[in-house]
Amino acid sequence: MPAAPADKVAIIGASGALGFGLAVRFGRAGVPVAIGSRDPARAEEAAGRARSAAGTGDFSAHDNAQAAREADTVILSVPFRNHSETLANLKEALSPGKLLIDATVPLAAAVSGKATRMLGVWQGSAAEQAAEMAPAGVRVVSALHTVSAAKLNDLDRVLDEDVLVCGDAREDKREAALLIERIDGLRCVDCGPLETSRTTESLTALLIGVNTRYKVHAGIRLAGLPDVPWE
Amino acid sequence: MPAAPADKVAIIGASGALGFGLAVRFGRAGVPVAIGSRDPARAEEAAGRARSAAGTGDFSAHDNAQAAREADTVILSVPFRNHSETLANLKEALSPGKLLIDATVPLAAAVSGKATRMLGVWQGSAAEQAAEMAPAGVRVVSALHTVSAAKLNDLDRVLDEDVLVCGDAREDKREAALLIERIDGLRCVDCGPLETSRTTESLTALLIGVNTRYKVHAGIRLAGLPDVPWE
Repeated sequence: MPAAPADKVAIIGASGALGFGLAVRFGRAGVPVAIGSRDPARAEEAAGRARSAAGTGDFSAHDNAQAAREADTVILSVPFRNHSETLANLKEALSPGKLLIDATVPLAAAVSGKATRMLGVWQGSAAEQAAEMAPAGVRVVSALHTVSAAKLNDLDRVLDEDVLVCGDAREDKREAALLIERIDGLRCVDCGPLETSRTTESLTALLIGVNTRYKVHAGIRLAGLPDVPWE
Repeated sequence: MPAAPADKVAIIGASGALGFGLAVRFGRAGVPVAIGSRDPARAEEAAGRARSAAGTGDFSAHDNAQAAREADTVILSVPFRNHSETLANLKEALSPGKLLIDATVPLAAAVSGKATRMLGVWQGSAAEQAAEMAPAGVRVVSALHTVSAAKLNDLDRVLDEDVLVCGDAREDKREAALLIERIDGLRCVDCGPLETSRTTESLTALLIGVNTRYKVHAGIRLAGLPDVPWE
């Protein structure tokens, strides 16, 4: 059954490793994907690679702003050094009512520091910065920080981990969760208000350290939490 | 086989829920436990309860400073509002070479705020405050923040989760891990330097929110991480 157009997701920064992995996994799951990149040529190239990796799926290529116009749900997956500039450039495209899922992590690597350390963000987290910068009426949640890009990109890998979702409105988190859970093996957990993103974002730096130390691609699982449906 | 005296662990704040749960689990595992409390009478009372809950085990009761003198390994499990004062009072007792495992979490509840929010600690985390305050030569690691006190105290509950261990010396983390892993169902993961405790401590606030929301006692598991021995 083909997915309804309402399912379409735009990925801002889809030529990056996390964005690309998400694009491929969503495409395979039957979710139409608007692939966004700063450079339309890189978007085209990424869409071609995604088609070929997924073997199926509906991928279109755009610059970031046009990608954001193409879908009601927009995933923001850019390096933190581009986070503020990207959001400023999306002001026109992010019309009221859109759902913005921010996956950005303020790693110190953004300023040539360690990827195992975080930058202090005045608002508290990248997600709170996004909420401050997004136009009024845009609904902001954060998610997907702890999902390994390498694992998403390796389609032979079975995913089996949790996605920690933060946001100030339960309904927005639910909407994000129902989309994200279309990717097999990802379970979304409501981790509280958007401010808790301070913790979920910083888990990425912790996992990068663990990955280096143990030579793995680790994710997070909340132990002792039974499957609780979002519906 | 009775445990060697070198295995003895002191628990500072053992009349609190986390400290008491650890005492009971260690006692059952054959680790001699020096139960510490600010009030020696409360220590006696906790030791009695621990003996009766564990059904076995070697428990002794002391004020906090004396408990710290009794063992080479000292677990600090106090409310954050008492963290600094407790460490100041332990200055004489914490002799060089001791291993201090800090489980303290700077929840905003310490200042009548929410238990789902963190306080900002100037040093970065409770563990880094402990490292600054501990006498020279005391080895500081942090661990056990994410382990549910309720689950530890319910001996019918099978534990099955990870303990995130931070510290600046691998050997200190290993020593802490080998002790902690004597409790069935706890697996220790090296999560990097002591500064990463900023993240592991804040996970407690996140889990408190999850526990309320889902009516569970959740813990953390690193997904995709095979068992890697510490030896």
